[in-house]
Amino acid sequence: MKVLAICGSLRAKSSNKGLLRCAQANAPEGMQISIADLSQIPFYNADITEQPAAVKQLLAQMAEADAFIFGGPEYNYSISPALKNAIDWASRVEGNTIFAGKAVALMGAGGGMGTSRAQYHLRQVCVFVDLHPLNKPEVFANAFAGGFDADGNVIDEKIKENVRTQLVALADWSKKISS
Amino acid sequence: MKVLAICGSLRAKSSNKGLLRCAQANAPEGMQISIADLSQIPFYNADITEQPAAVKQLLAQMAEADAFIFGGPEYNYSISPALKNAIDWASRVEGNTIFAGKAVALMGAGGGMGTSRAQYHLRQVCVFVDLHPLNKPEVFANAFAGGFDADGNVIDEKIKENVRTQLVALADWSKKISS
Amino acid sequence: MKVLAICGSLRAKSSNKGLLRCAQANAPEGMQISIADLSQIPFYNADITEQPAAVKQLLAQMAEADAFIFGGPEYNYSISPALKNAIDWASRVEGNTIFAGKAVALMGAGGGMGTSRAQYHLRQVCVFVDLHPLNKPEVFANAFAGGFDADGNVIDEKIKENVRTQLVALADWSKKISS
Amino acid sequence: MKVLAICGSLRAKSSNKGLLRCAQANAPEGMQISIADLSQIPFYNADITEQPAAVKQLLAQMAEADAFIFGGPEYNYSISPALKNAIDWASRVEGNTIFAGKAVALMGAGGGMGTSRAQYHLRQVCVFVDLHPLNKPEVFANAFAGGFDADGNVIDEKIKENVRTQLVALADWSKKISS
Repeated sequence: MKVLAICGSLRAKSSNKGLLRCAQANAPEGMQISIADLSQIPFYNADITEQPAAVKQLLAQMAEADAFIFGGPEYNYSISPALKNAIDWASRVEGNTIFAGKAVALMGAGGGMGTSRAQYHLRQVCVFVDLHPLNKPEVFANAFAGGFDADGNVIDEKIKENVRTQLVALADWSKKISS
Repeated sequence: MKVLAICGSLRAKSSNKGLLRCAQANAPEGMQISIADLSQIPFYNADITEQPAAVKQLLAQMAEADAFIFGGPEYNYSISPALKNAIDWASRVEGNTIFAGKAVALMGAGGGMGTSRAQYHLRQVCVFVDLHPLNKPEVFANAFAGGFDADGNVIDEKIKENVRTQLVALADWSKKISS
Repeated sequence: MKVLAICGSLRAKSSNKGLLRCAQANAPEGMQISIADLSQIPFYNADITEQPAAVKQLLAQMAEADAFIFGGPEYNYSISPALKNAIDWASRVEGNTIFAGKAVALMGAGGGMGTSRAQYHLRQVCVFVDLHPLNKPEVFANAFAGGFDADGNVIDEKIKENVRTQLVALADWSKKISS
Repeated sequence: MKVLAICGSLRAKSSNKGLLRCAQANAPEGMQISIADLSQIPFYNADITEQPAAVKQLLAQMAEADAFIFGGPEYNYSISPALKNAIDWASRVEGNTIFAGKAVALMGAGGGMGTSRAQYHLRQVCVFVDLHPLNKPEVFANAFAGGFDADGNVIDEKIKENVRTQLVALADWSKKISS
């Protein structure tokens, strides 16, 4: 199972990037997690008729993915623009072949609410693009309570365990809905 | 009263840009509406320590505004990244002096729901940045029912009237809460 | 496949009741739709230690259902209390055996937005109770545009077709996720 | 300033009732807080043509209020039916004279998210009924971390202080928007 993880933070030492690296390192057997690079993706604009190379590469990676992980951060109680923009580009592919019917897990690190507000907005986005978000377990990591080191790496065992449990559930859910 | 209108579409012939031009042309006496230019605004990234010129200019315009208009479009049942990103940059200004306590009106043009789903997400964003969105009237314009010409200009009188009524309500609301 | 449809309106001639009767009359082969009776269900209250008979009967019907339909109306941009209360009662059953892992379709009749705002709130409720709402098609019927007669019956063919299509999708989705 | 506080829990020892009693005991000078009694309020039903006495009394209290407090709990990631139902009854009063233009503060006690998910749904309800919810401070109390005694009374000083600060902000906000 190929999973593409997409982080909404462009910052080098982002704890949300760290959370996705944690997922990558803790993938269950049979699951391969790649992390998308959004650094060169421009804002979607219908006037751009020739897709930039970075967009082409992202869409190709997305098309190959069996399932997705959408990561944080939460900005101002909603989704970060970089993540939303990646989804918006993909949604424009003829026939919505990138997302339709696939599974997605949501995870994020932030303040006390752990990006939950952004995640509920993402769930509404999933309705339109026809992704099926995992219900449980939710991953709401606290980025400011000692669970991450200065480079954004997860150092807390409970967060790692929460991520592992979610990935096992994602594998099950993805298999079920793609049968 | 100075109002800054921000459109989430970067497309030249966007009906949402047209809706903001319609607002500009129909501002009540005493209200001056400027339209922000987001074409050169990069994604917010905490690693960018020197603000790009376009960001500086946007933030200066925002700081001068007494009130705001947040326009559409709605992408995939939520906010367009370009608009959200402009809000996110502004929210990082020390002390949240750009938004705190100011009024905002929401308007948008889209399919049958008229960007309503994006607008309710925007209202949640307003809680954190401490903007006070106008309750009524809501402006949900249909972009595909003959109300706009091919350049995105509003040609429907009912939409114009809806916009005018909202601007009068915005003026009242802004005065009330800034007293 | 046994489906339990739950209407949030208690009114006799409710168009939302009519929409559920329309679903019942248009169920695809192999699907049996019952409509729950909420008229005697009291507000959930943890101090009620002995379940009232009407609650017992509702929970028994729910437990037997393979899938659900949650109907409108939308009140004040959110879910009607009678529907939400039925869900809340069921969620208190030990082990969440009533809902966990089952499919649900959402439909409703209302003003121009067709109860969409209530439906997105319902989708968030589904996350916690571990129901899997159908993504597409959404059913947003206009109750005030000639599609219903004075008794709340659906008379518009497009609405009937929309409901039929959703029920076929519900059958597929329910089979897939219960495999 | 007369404030009516409405609790969504019907349980005698509810921590959300306790939170409202805490508000009542900590009202700033010049603010009088009453707590509504929802125990006899039936579900709203348009077929009920004669308002029950309990509804009449509630609506009279609401009409007299200058501002409101909407309390928790959160049930299944959304609003409790008893609170939503009280709002729905009031919204049916001709001309929306009960709510239009008034201020409301939201507070709640629950799990780690402190009823935040229900509060964001309530904010959307406020748009339609034309209430103006306070942006800050939000009150998200943890009901399971020692802040409440067995009778639901607030015993944690930080929660009390959070409530006090919110009430002062509510008084300011209410004065501002009713000017």
